[in-house]
Amino acid sequence: MESAVLQPVKQSVNELDFLFKPKSIAIIGASQKELSIGNVIIKNLVSYGYTGSIYPINPKMNEIRGIQAYPTIFDVPYDIDLAHVIVPAKAVPQIIDECGQKGIKAVIINSAGFSEMGDEGIALQKDFLRIAKNYGIRIFGPNCQGIINTDAEYKAYCDFTFTFPKPGNISIVALSGGVGAFIMQSLFDLDFGMRLYASNGNACDVSISDVIKYYGDDEQTKVILLYTEGLSNPLEFMEVAKEVTKKKPILAMKAGRTEEGAKAAASHTGALAGVDISTELIFEKTGILAFNNEEELCQVAMAFTTQPIPKGNRVGIITNTGGPAVIATDELVSAGLRLPALSDRAKAILQATQLPEATIGNPIDVVATGGGVHFRSALDVLMDEEDIDSIYINFVTAPFTDTDEVARNIVEVSKLKRKPIICNFMTNMSLERFQVTAAILKEGGVPCYSFPTTAAKALGALYRYSKVRDRNIGEAKEYPVINKEFVASILQKAHQENKEYLPADAVYQILDAYGIPTAPWQLTESIVDAENAAEKIGYPVVVKAESETIIHKSDMGGVAINLKNATEVSAALQKMHENLGSHNLKFLVQKFLPGGKELIAGVSIKQGLGHLIMFGLGGIYVEVLKDVVFKIAPVTPLETTEMLASIKASKLLDGVRGEKGINKELVKEIIQRVSQLVTDFPMIQEMDMNPIIALNNKVFVVDARMKIK
Amino acid sequence: MESAVLQPVKQSVNELDFLFKPKSIAIIGASQKELSIGNVIIKNLVSYGYTGSIYPINPKMNEIRGIQAYPTIFDVPYDIDLAHVIVPAKAVPQIIDECGQKGIKAVIINSAGFSEMGDEGIALQKDFLRIAKNYGIRIFGPNCQGIINTDAEYKAYCDFTFTFPKPGNISIVALSGGVGAFIMQSLFDLDFGMRLYASNGNACDVSISDVIKYYGDDEQTKVILLYTEGLSNPLEFMEVAKEVTKKKPILAMKAGRTEEGAKAAASHTGALAGVDISTELIFEKTGILAFNNEEELCQVAMAFTTQPIPKGNRVGIITNTGGPAVIATDELVSAGLRLPALSDRAKAILQATQLPEATIGNPIDVVATGGGVHFRSALDVLMDEEDIDSIYINFVTAPFTDTDEVARNIVEVSKLKRKPIICNFMTNMSLERFQVTAAILKEGGVPCYSFPTTAAKALGALYRYSKVRDRNIGEAKEYPVINKEFVASILQKAHQENKEYLPADAVYQILDAYGIPTAPWQLTESIVDAENAAEKIGYPVVVKAESETIIHKSDMGGVAINLKNATEVSAALQKMHENLGSHNLKFLVQKFLPGGKELIAGVSIKQGLGHLIMFGLGGIYVEVLKDVVFKIAPVTPLETTEMLASIKASKLLDGVRGEKGINKELVKEIIQRVSQLVTDFPMIQEMDMNPIIALNNKVFVVDARMKIK
Repeated sequence: MESAVLQPVKQSVNELDFLFKPKSIAIIGASQKELSIGNVIIKNLVSYGYTGSIYPINPKMNEIRGIQAYPTIFDVPYDIDLAHVIVPAKAVPQIIDECGQKGIKAVIINSAGFSEMGDEGIALQKDFLRIAKNYGIRIFGPNCQGIINTDAEYKAYCDFTFTFPKPGNISIVALSGGVGAFIMQSLFDLDFGMRLYASNGNACDVSISDVIKYYGDDEQTKVILLYTEGLSNPLEFMEVAKEVTKKKPILAMKAGRTEEGAKAAASHTGALAGVDISTELIFEKTGILAFNNEEELCQVAMAFTTQPIPKGNRVGIITNTGGPAVIATDELVSAGLRLPALSDRAKAILQATQLPEATIGNPIDVVATGGGVHFRSALDVLMDEEDIDSIYINFVTAPFTDTDEVARNIVEVSKLKRKPIICNFMTNMSLERFQVTAAILKEGGVPCYSFPTTAAKALGALYRYSKVRDRNIGEAKEYPVINKEFVASILQKAHQENKEYLPADAVYQILDAYGIPTAPWQLTESIVDAENAAEKIGYPVVVKAESETIIHKSDMGGVAINLKNATEVSAALQKMHENLGSHNLKFLVQKFLPGGKELIAGVSIKQGLGHLIMFGLGGIYVEVLKDVVFKIAPVTPLETTEMLASIKASKLLDGVRGEKGINKELVKEIIQRVSQLVTDFPMIQEMDMNPIIALNNKVFVVDARMKIK
Repeated sequence: MESAVLQPVKQSVNELDFLFKPKSIAIIGASQKELSIGNVIIKNLVSYGYTGSIYPINPKMNEIRGIQAYPTIFDVPYDIDLAHVIVPAKAVPQIIDECGQKGIKAVIINSAGFSEMGDEGIALQKDFLRIAKNYGIRIFGPNCQGIINTDAEYKAYCDFTFTFPKPGNISIVALSGGVGAFIMQSLFDLDFGMRLYASNGNACDVSISDVIKYYGDDEQTKVILLYTEGLSNPLEFMEVAKEVTKKKPILAMKAGRTEEGAKAAASHTGALAGVDISTELIFEKTGILAFNNEEELCQVAMAFTTQPIPKGNRVGIITNTGGPAVIATDELVSAGLRLPALSDRAKAILQATQLPEATIGNPIDVVATGGGVHFRSALDVLMDEEDIDSIYINFVTAPFTDTDEVARNIVEVSKLKRKPIICNFMTNMSLERFQVTAAILKEGGVPCYSFPTTAAKALGALYRYSKVRDRNIGEAKEYPVINKEFVASILQKAHQENKEYLPADAVYQILDAYGIPTAPWQLTESIVDAENAAEKIGYPVVVKAESETIIHKSDMGGVAINLKNATEVSAALQKMHENLGSHNLKFLVQKFLPGGKELIAGVSIKQGLGHLIMFGLGGIYVEVLKDVVFKIAPVTPLETTEMLASIKASKLLDGVRGEKGINKELVKEIIQRVSQLVTDFPMIQEMDMNPIIALNNKVFVVDARMKIK
């Protein structure tokens, strides 16, 4: 077509368009051998109806599956957008170089034998990646399945799997081909469409983040499904996810949530083992909806592409059978939804329109003999109820009712999209009669499930997402009156002295400089000094022995609490000299603060991401109940409020059994100031503030430790 | 057949055989109207291939669906085993009387309009039930679906639903027809068979317990699935369940686990609302495996009918794809299973037999290109590993492998039934090639699932059942040295005086009589008495004002703690006189025991079942964390051990932060003695022992309350 020549170059071409929207594909390593990857990919492209050109590359064949083959890509007399590479690992760098010479912009490397296979593979991977960067080629994989684009304009099935999805609005990304494939399969089994698919294996270049960014920009993608076992570049992912979640929901599952699961993940990805909580924290921080069950993830996706998001947690149930409504109610309530009572208006309408056997309430039981008109009146009533945000339906296809009529009524109301409708459709799909009913619901865009709990979980997820979407975490506060230079100088000095743990006085000085309240303290070098310091601070005091060689002060008799006068101080210090020797011994004298509630806060660093901030109740709560919560720094005011509210024993902070509550605002301020401190100084690797003593009007850090790099 | 006359009467005929194994069925209220229940039941019997005689009863028709009809049952010239009744509620008593006259032994009343519809319906139900009892007729329903027997000898589909199950070994019972039907449907969708089905609606005569007993005696029933929203006769159910669970697993789901769910259940069953925890406790006590998710219940049943129960929690994983093994590991570990390392022997064999890319470990990754031989060697190795009790397989049907060969190998090993095998089979069942593979697995009795989490949950349930089955709760101890007569006399007296709450001295006397240690106490009537008592008991003491008119002693200034001498006692009592007046005021003087751990125990009665015993940590643990656990009395030694171990903060009982632990044996003894007390005296409605102070060598009840009827 000549006109094509005259068209201007497409504006803002996305690099990944060559990958996801290829107009021509070379299969380097094409094979005549049935069931080989180099054959299956060609077969899949053809069977799925790929709209572009296919160029099998094989030095020995003239044609493969009836398509003209070429000895090398240089023999192809046309431009090539995308190449599949299915050749032995060692040949890949050379092939990538040839792709560069040919001007190919994207390559899917299906071959294995790279970073997943030890040092030699890692070297090979680095090798071809360097070549690719030189030419500006984007590499997908290696050791991967590939991509699928269901768009009728492309129908690009660049993958060796075996399920041909219908077009739809859900896009999938998963490093793991196994998981990606069964997510796709699951949508297929649900007779639900898919938009784009990407399973990028070793992901040496095109990353999960790149794909999610692409899906975010793709208008036809309404929902993104992500499966991951961890993130190689968490900061990049956070940046991307934060933007994409503003536009569309990302539903994600992170596997490896147990120690053993993480080990299994490490063994097949070559990553380090150890449970990584930071991915879930990233999901939370960026507004990604997290799941622990892949079946639920797939089921729920259906609801997201067809239904509006509920405005609140108030659900109305319509049912034509009792038991399933009980099961659904249990699950909905467990998911945080409520079943408000119906208004008098609603009840009056239902009394006039429902069968006499019907139950007028919430749930509304239209009974098994209820027909289209009864479902309709119940639906209309709930749609008009101000106190109802969503509708859950149990629809069992009683053999003595016109089930098609019921389905048509549900669809008519659902199409108005005023409130989300989820339907648990209980039927026998092997009967033609009910297949018709199912088709009416399906074509009408009503998400149907076959178990009450499953349907209720889907509605629960929509509600959970409404909270995620409406949560504006805001920005971290920057406290202005801090002494950053002073802290920098302390840290610099400790670093120069190769200190791993900072001396106590340095830690307290840093806390003071960032406005983090500490119990009044003074470092002293003699008994007389200590007595004077105690006098100044005011009794009672605690004295802690300080020496570079003493790590576990308390175990070694280096801590004396509740000293009430100079005599006690002097006696305690003499005892410490006896216990610990006199060499280089200093004494930290500190105000002793009995009573109050023990809290803890801590900081740890996660490579590639930054600091995690921990908060919890101290003492037995952290030791026995592990009652702590984490967030990624910098934490915002909303996040600190969430931290205090989300520990299990949060009610204790408000005071119980006649106690006064603690001053939460002061605690939140400490967390935020700590967050600001570690964000300002990434060299801080760990901090422990244990305990923090919280009273009803004051909060103090009483003991602190800091590790630097 | 003349020979029939000569046969002896069948030994030990089960009454319910007339219901589940009818040789002839009358349909009273048979109808020519398509889709009416009186027509559908005949249609279902015929279509399903019922082997007995069908007698439609209708005064106006000569035939229905081509079968000769009779005006009344008296016109049927043969014996009738079972009758369906589908006539208006008011006509039912008369019909039952006629059934009696005819000698019919079992009746399914499908008609509604009885106890579910208020007083008039309740009266009608009583009416026909009285008649039925007179004739010895067993009534199934009313307001119910009916029964199904898939046995080729009967093929009795006495139900108006629409799914025709294959024969199998799972039997289902559910009051709720809606839930029963979708459980049956779910097995059907899984292409799995069923043995017997019963949905008994109002269950006025044949109860859930009767059905479960029948299923227990039915040799072909290997697994029982139960759905319930509560039990009308919990004691009877316990008796039956205890026996049946010795013979076969019962998998059960109890809905109405939330306040709102219980309300929804009450609205459709006419039961009282309020969350009923006793059903779950009955499940636990009788060895029934409980589920919260009906889909999981159905999925899991498959595994129970085909696989042996694992001997322990050690699982070996075989996978041909990475990600799904990670997901499965997470779920298996969460379910309490472990993945032991492989022995050197196992590793050596695998090194020699697996592909070079394979991962030799647990999970064993045979990789996607692994074929039958690789799966087989992995299976054989795990079967021979002493440290492995069960095998989990992820099998994705890679297009380039001989998947049938893999399936055949799995089946061959599975058939040995040495250890349970669960398979997550990830495939596209719309492709004929993989349907063949699936059929090999299915016919070979390998339970296949389509999600790793689902498959892992099934194995998790098998393991959970192994613990339930092997748990021998034993018998409750009977402490011999108790003074039962004395307690009887105290209770008798209080009862005669119409007391609801017992006076404090009576409560302490009762505890003393049952050997339940209390803090030394004495009831006194004057200040002088109190001083003497305190002297005898030993300081410090606590004094509590006692008067019938004072309920909340502590709020009204009626409690004084930590009194150290006679002066303090005297002052405290004078103050109490001022606060509370002098009329009838007595003083309970008790040893004050500071320190120690606060525990609580309590008793409440559940009508029709007996007493529930509660135990927990006192103070904030019960108030904030609701850290308590319940069991049904009488509790056995094992159960008390479980109670102490299953509170969330159970580690506190062992002592943390350098504290000594408490003496658990003494606490367990208190619980068991309390259990014995309330079992001996059902008139005790409530008991509260709060706090119980536990020290490392002593335990005392410090405050107690008792309510009687």
